[in-house]
Amino acid sequence: MARTTLDDRDRELLQGTNFCHVATLREDGTIHNVPVWVDVDGDTVLLNSAEGRAWPANARRTGKATLTVANMENPYEYVSITGHITGDTHDGADEHIDALAKKYLGKDEYPWRSPEEQRIKVRITPEKVDSAGLDE
Amino acid sequence: MARTTLDDRDRELLQGTNFCHVATLREDGTIHNVPVWVDVDGDTVLLNSAEGRAWPANARRTGKATLTVANMENPYEYVSITGHITGDTHDGADEHIDALAKKYLGKDEYPWRSPEEQRIKVRITPEKVDSAGLDE
Repeated sequence: MARTTLDDRDRELLQGTNFCHVATLREDGTIHNVPVWVDVDGDTVLLNSAEGRAWPANARRTGKATLTVANMENPYEYVSITGHITGDTHDGADEHIDALAKKYLGKDEYPWRSPEEQRIKVRITPEKVDSAGLDE
Repeated sequence: MARTTLDDRDRELLQGTNFCHVATLREDGTIHNVPVWVDVDGDTVLLNSAEGRAWPANARRTGKATLTVANMENPYEYVSITGHITGDTHDGADEHIDALAKKYLGKDEYPWRSPEEQRIKVRITPEKVDSAGLDE
């Protein structure tokens, strides 16, 4: 049964070192989908990207994204969140990618930074949340 | 750079026990995305589902799906395939889900079969293939 907000287990999956598949609509109406790092802030989800990348451009144009996070320890458990973009900022985006590097890589600084890139922090507010779990 | 067909490394990722996120368009224009088992047959990708599930209904209605497979050993490597549905059949679908159970679970028979469900085998022909790899 779909929900409209995150529950505690959804937050655990988002707080873990699980990857998030972010799906957005291309201008031609097909779906773009890539794995990214993810973070949760209360009732909203935070992603980080850089100017010039495909998915944040799609998310800005459409206002929407679907985020699917499977449990890396048990890929039969996942949460899928369809939501709208409620924040999109450069402020704090560099600190945020460093925090994600700490979470996912155990490193204090994001190691793949390139001098010309401008990071973006994107906030997504859930509208529809589906989850499922199955033991092998 | 996007390609239009699968290359050998894409096939390896699809042949491995990696999960596939299948993204389709809901009638309301938002994106539905769930992890599923996946298989490759030459230049096409095979998925299996059951009548009544959301994603095959969306795939039939729109004729399209985007399939994203990350390497479970290194989630920074992935392939994302946008394609169209070129087959959708009940013929051989039970045998196909058993073959997928063998691949993913090492079991001769799909263990979660329910008596009333009708399996579907769905073939997707790639149109646009993106891949990326990054070492930690």
